[in-house]
Amino acid sequence: MKSTSGYAESESGDAGGIQRGGMHASSMKISLNKFPGFSKSGPELYLLCKQIAKGKDKLPIYVGEVGPVWSYPETQIDCIVADPKKGSKMYGLKSYIEYQITPNTTNRPVNHRYKHFDWLYERLLDKFGSAIPIPSLPDKQVTGRFEEEFIKMRMERLQGWMSRMCRHPVVSGSEVFQLFLTYKDEKDWKMGKRKAEKDETVGVMIFSTIEPEAADLDPLEVEQKCEQFSKFTKAMDDSVKEVLTVGNEHWKRCTGPLPKEYQRIGKAFQNLSSVFTSSGYQGESTLTDALTAAGKTYEEIAQLVAEQPKKDLHFLMETNNEYKGLLGCFPDTIGVHKVNISP
Amino acid sequence: MKSTSGYAESESGDAGGIQRGGMHASSMKISLNKFPGFSKSGPELYLLCKQIAKGKDKLPIYVGEVGPVWSYPETQIDCIVADPKKGSKMYGLKSYIEYQITPNTTNRPVNHRYKHFDWLYERLLDKFGSAIPIPSLPDKQVTGRFEEEFIKMRMERLQGWMSRMCRHPVVSGSEVFQLFLTYKDEKDWKMGKRKAEKDETVGVMIFSTIEPEAADLDPLEVEQKCEQFSKFTKAMDDSVKEVLTVGNEHWKRCTGPLPKEYQRIGKAFQNLSSVFTSSGYQGESTLTDALTAAGKTYEEIAQLVAEQPKKDLHFLMETNNEYKGLLGCFPDTIGVHKVNISP
Repeated sequence: MKSTSGYAESESGDAGGIQRGGMHASSMKISLNKFPGFSKSGPELYLLCKQIAKGKDKLPIYVGEVGPVWSYPETQIDCIVADPKKGSKMYGLKSYIEYQITPNTTNRPVNHRYKHFDWLYERLLDKFGSAIPIPSLPDKQVTGRFEEEFIKMRMERLQGWMSRMCRHPVVSGSEVFQLFLTYKDEKDWKMGKRKAEKDETVGVMIFSTIEPEAADLDPLEVEQKCEQFSKFTKAMDDSVKEVLTVGNEHWKRCTGPLPKEYQRIGKAFQNLSSVFTSSGYQGESTLTDALTAAGKTYEEIAQLVAEQPKKDLHFLMETNNEYKGLLGCFPDTIGVHKVNISP
Repeated sequence: MKSTSGYAESESGDAGGIQRGGMHASSMKISLNKFPGFSKSGPELYLLCKQIAKGKDKLPIYVGEVGPVWSYPETQIDCIVADPKKGSKMYGLKSYIEYQITPNTTNRPVNHRYKHFDWLYERLLDKFGSAIPIPSLPDKQVTGRFEEEFIKMRMERLQGWMSRMCRHPVVSGSEVFQLFLTYKDEKDWKMGKRKAEKDETVGVMIFSTIEPEAADLDPLEVEQKCEQFSKFTKAMDDSVKEVLTVGNEHWKRCTGPLPKEYQRIGKAFQNLSSVFTSSGYQGESTLTDALTAAGKTYEEIAQLVAEQPKKDLHFLMETNNEYKGLLGCFPDTIGVHKVNISP
């Protein structure tokens, strides 16, 4: 949602129907500072520099049924994150896990550590965060990060994050993303990194590269739409978090107390069975065999209950975690537009 | 298990291979005092009076494959406990619940309050407790005893208790039990009650009425069998209580936190659905209808989970409660025989 209505923080111009005072603009400024990119290029910079974007950096859009749409590239990029390996440097003093990422475009694997993903995330957030939600990476973790289970889970989550980034026409086509996927050697990677870190088309500057420029919008309409989007994304964020909370609780119960209880029921039946076995009564096996079988069945139920979440709840949780990451971007992204239309 | 090896508490006779001293006999005496009947008729009374039992009170047995067996009556008694009604006396100052009991022999209903069942229990325990396990009645309860759910449950349990008593050839044929089931009027009941309370064939006296008298048994063998029965009933009692404990825990979880959790999951889905409904996006109903249906399904699961215990666990619990009641009688019953064979 691009606006050309102008912005000057200290200016107290015509309110143009928007009943907001200086408090609002100043609270927006705080919000903007969450974007690292904004510290070197605030909205005012966009206004000053909007003519300088170079041709090759242009981001083409067209007007679709419900609004502007990014033009999609001809080939869809995808990649596979696999084969986590333990690496080390400084003569083994420092250990880390390296993942192999193979893009479908080159079919040539490159290696990256988690911190490289994090670096890429920061660059993407700097460059596109004002216009495109860049979901955060799977959490950092300090303890147990060499445990197999954790590495597998992180790999799956990095795969999910990369797949989402690959699907985005702007992100996937960007120079920094391509560098990450297709660097030729260490030297290539180092040089690309330096270049990306010096990139000045960051923060709100993204809007200067979008082509064609949108027609001027009614500030009131923009404000209303921003409000609407804010409300919706906030409500969806709350609901997604609610799903995650109850899902987590259910996960814990299904892998903790519930199977333990079924195990105890199973044990109780088997204990009763062994009492009868020790009785010395004739023909007790008809009874004890049935009791033992019932007890073992309860133990199997315990196992089924404990393993079930991995088979269904897992996917619900992962998807909602992705949504949570995406939705977390919206307050700041919408904030940029609100500031731009403030009088 | 009848023994004629003799008993005299203060006598220190030949140990006869049984390595037990006065401590044991004295601890047995404490145990015996749990039987109200024993206070007026100790084992010594049995020895003194064993010749006086009258013909009509004789309890016939025959020797079956695994030992002595009670002779069964020709017709099997059963009864139906139903139709609990609130009654009152003293001009409504005292309220109580009366149950209707209809035996299959007369098909004529009689009314009894819980306290009448309790009176019957005490009589049966006095009269037969040394030889026949008389399971305790369902628990007394002070608060909420007029609540429909409680009345229904108590009625079911009284039915279970009565059915078990009816099935026992000795108990069901006894005068006091017949009085309870077939008294003609208030006067008949009062007179029968007085007579039963004066009955002197109680406690160990039951053994004097069994016919034919068993052959003398080897005290050592009796001791060993008593030990074996003690061990088995104790172990079964422990196991039955374990089943009851885990069953109770499972019942609580199934009717408490587990359905609540499914309800919360259901609500979370429906909240997410209503967020999309409020979005104003076109075609959202494909998504929201599915989410709402998923949410409602979780709420149905909650209900299923909460109602399941009544459909299966209930019967396991009731049966085990009956077993618990029966098993609780054995220590004292076996104790009688141990005392009788003590040197």
